[in-house]
Amino acid sequence: MRIGDLGEFGFIDRIKNGCLNRKSGVVAGIGDDCAVFRVPGNLAVLLTTDMLIEDVHFRLSEIPPYFLGRKSLAVSISDIAAMGGTPREALVSIGIPGSIEVVYLDEIYKGLKAIATEYDINILGGDTVLSPDRLVINVALSGEERDDEILYRSGALEGDVIFIAGTLGRSAAGLDLLRNKREFEKKEGLLTAHFDPIPHVWSGRIIASSKLANSMIDISDGLVGDLWHVCKESGVGALIEMENMPIDDNLREYCERYRLDLERFVLYGGEDYVLMGTVATESSDLLRESLKAQDCDYFPIGKMVDGDSIKLRENGGTIRELARSGYDHFSGE
Amino acid sequence: MRIGDLGEFGFIDRIKNGCLNRKSGVVAGIGDDCAVFRVPGNLAVLLTTDMLIEDVHFRLSEIPPYFLGRKSLAVSISDIAAMGGTPREALVSIGIPGSIEVVYLDEIYKGLKAIATEYDINILGGDTVLSPDRLVINVALSGEERDDEILYRSGALEGDVIFIAGTLGRSAAGLDLLRNKREFEKKEGLLTAHFDPIPHVWSGRIIASSKLANSMIDISDGLVGDLWHVCKESGVGALIEMENMPIDDNLREYCERYRLDLERFVLYGGEDYVLMGTVATESSDLLRESLKAQDCDYFPIGKMVDGDSIKLRENGGTIRELARSGYDHFSGE
Repeated sequence: MRIGDLGEFGFIDRIKNGCLNRKSGVVAGIGDDCAVFRVPGNLAVLLTTDMLIEDVHFRLSEIPPYFLGRKSLAVSISDIAAMGGTPREALVSIGIPGSIEVVYLDEIYKGLKAIATEYDINILGGDTVLSPDRLVINVALSGEERDDEILYRSGALEGDVIFIAGTLGRSAAGLDLLRNKREFEKKEGLLTAHFDPIPHVWSGRIIASSKLANSMIDISDGLVGDLWHVCKESGVGALIEMENMPIDDNLREYCERYRLDLERFVLYGGEDYVLMGTVATESSDLLRESLKAQDCDYFPIGKMVDGDSIKLRENGGTIRELARSGYDHFSGE
Repeated sequence: MRIGDLGEFGFIDRIKNGCLNRKSGVVAGIGDDCAVFRVPGNLAVLLTTDMLIEDVHFRLSEIPPYFLGRKSLAVSISDIAAMGGTPREALVSIGIPGSIEVVYLDEIYKGLKAIATEYDINILGGDTVLSPDRLVINVALSGEERDDEILYRSGALEGDVIFIAGTLGRSAAGLDLLRNKREFEKKEGLLTAHFDPIPHVWSGRIIASSKLANSMIDISDGLVGDLWHVCKESGVGALIEMENMPIDDNLREYCERYRLDLERFVLYGGEDYVLMGTVATESSDLLRESLKAQDCDYFPIGKMVDGDSIKLRENGGTIRELARSGYDHFSGE
C-alpha cells in the first residue's frame, strides 16, 4: 500500500496513537489546527507546523519570492488564528537547491520578516540545509491563548449556526487565472488573495474572547473539506444555503467572463484562510455585532444538523448531498 | 551569487537581522544550538528545529526506516542537550514521495515514537504532505531548563579546559564502512553509532546543573568545526592535545585495518552528537567527579587560549594550526 491509497487523513489516523508520553497538561495533540498544552497562569500554548514543497505547494515561476516568504508563515499564523490564539515564536527551516540565487532567498526572508513584524512574531531560529533540486520551507509556530477561550473543531453542536468571517474562492480563482494564463481587468484582487492570504488573527481573537462560538477552523482545504473536519470531529452533519453564501464581486465577474462554475470555487476552492465557526442560534446576532463593531465580517451560511453528511440547499430550493472532497495531499482529490 | 558561494553560516549571518519583534524575554535567537526565551518561574523554553532531506542527510538504501525515524528526532534532542535542557514537545513534518510504501512510513514513526518515549517527549503534531521525489523530515522540538543553568557556545573563557563527554569519529567510520561496502568483524558498534546516535541529555543536565561549566555545544559537524563555533562566539582560540584524545577501540582497529587516517575521523568526523564543554581549570576535577559519579564520560582534551585559531599539539609535540572545515551544507567542505 502506498500513501496515495491511504490519503493524508488516513495516514494521520494511522500514526497518531502512541505519540503522547506526558499526557498531563496536553489538551489536544494531533488532529486539530494546532496542538494545545496548558502552562501556568490559565494560559495555553498552541503549536502548529506547515511544510511547503516546490511543485506541490508552489511553483517558483508563479509566486514572487517575497510573497512565498509571507505565505510560508501566513499558513501557520492562520492555524493559530483558527483556535483564537495569538501567534508568538517561529522557527523556519529551509532546504535550498544549489542553483537558487542568494538575492532570491533574500526576498523570501524579506517576506517572512515583513509578515512576522505585522503579526508581532519572533523568528527565533531555524535550520538551513541543501536540497538536491526543490525548495522546501517548513515553519513551526507557537501561539498563546487563555485556556478557557480556545476553540476546537470538535465543539460544534446540532442546531448551531455555521458562519464564515470572509468570502471564499478568490485564492482558487487567482490560481486558476495564473495556471490558464487568463487576462482579466480586475485580476489583482484575485492574485493577491492567492499570493498573499491574510491570516485572520484579529477576527479569531474577537470570536474566541466573546466565548459565544462553539467551534472554529480556518478554511485552507476548501469550505466543504474543512466543514467535513468539523462534522467528523463534532459528530454532526451540516446544511449550508447557497443563497446565504457571500460572493466576492471580482470572483463572480471572473466566473461569468470565463463561464466557470462559481459554486465550485466557493465550495471547494482552497487557501482562502477565512475563519469558519459555529455558534448557538441565540448567540448568533450578538457575535455578529461583536465582529461588525471591529469591522470584521460575519456571514451565517447554514446550520449544523443531525447526520453525518454535508448538504447544500441550492438557490432554487433543492437540497443535495455534497461530495466531501477537500484537498487531500495524497489522494489528489 | 549562489548559496554555495556564501556557505551555511554566511547565509545565517545574512538573514539573522530583523527577526525579533518582541525582544523582551528572548535570551538567544538565531545562532546557538537552540533559541531561548524566558517564561515565568525562572524557567526558559528552548526551541530547535532540524530538516533532513533524502540524498543530502540520508539515503533510503543505507539507513533502515526505524533508525531514520529515531535519528530525525535524535539530532534535535541533542541540540536541547547541548544547552543543558530537557526535551519536551515535538512537531514532525514529513514530505512523502508517492512511491513510498506505508509500511516503510510505519517503521519511521515506530522509530520516532520509540525515542520519544525514551526521552519522555510528546509528539504533539505535525504536517503530512506530498513530496515529488525525495523524503523530507522536519522536526521542531521544545525543551525546558532553569534560566540560570543554560549553557551557550559563547561562554568559553581563555584558560578554560576543553572537555568532551564521549569519544569521536565512530559515526563517520560507520558511514565510511557503508559507503565503501567494507567488511569489518566489529562493524556493529560503528554502524550503530551512525544509525542510532545517542543524544546526551543526561550528561548535559549534570553539566548544566553543576553550574561549573562556562560553555557547551554538541558535536554534530565534527570536533574542529564545532569547536570553531565556540571560539568564534566566545572570542578566543583553542589548543587541543592529540595524546589526550580518547580513541574508541573499534575505530582504531577499523582505521588500522584499512589504513585510514584515524586523526581525520576524530577531528573532523560528524554526527557523533557527543557534548563538548569548557570549564575553568580549578573546577575541572569537580566536574569530572560529578559526571563519573553518574557513569558519564569526561575527557579533558585541551584549553581555550588567546587567539582566533584552533591549534593541535601532535603526539610528537609539534603544534600546528588546524583547518576549520566542519561540515558546511553548501560549501560542501
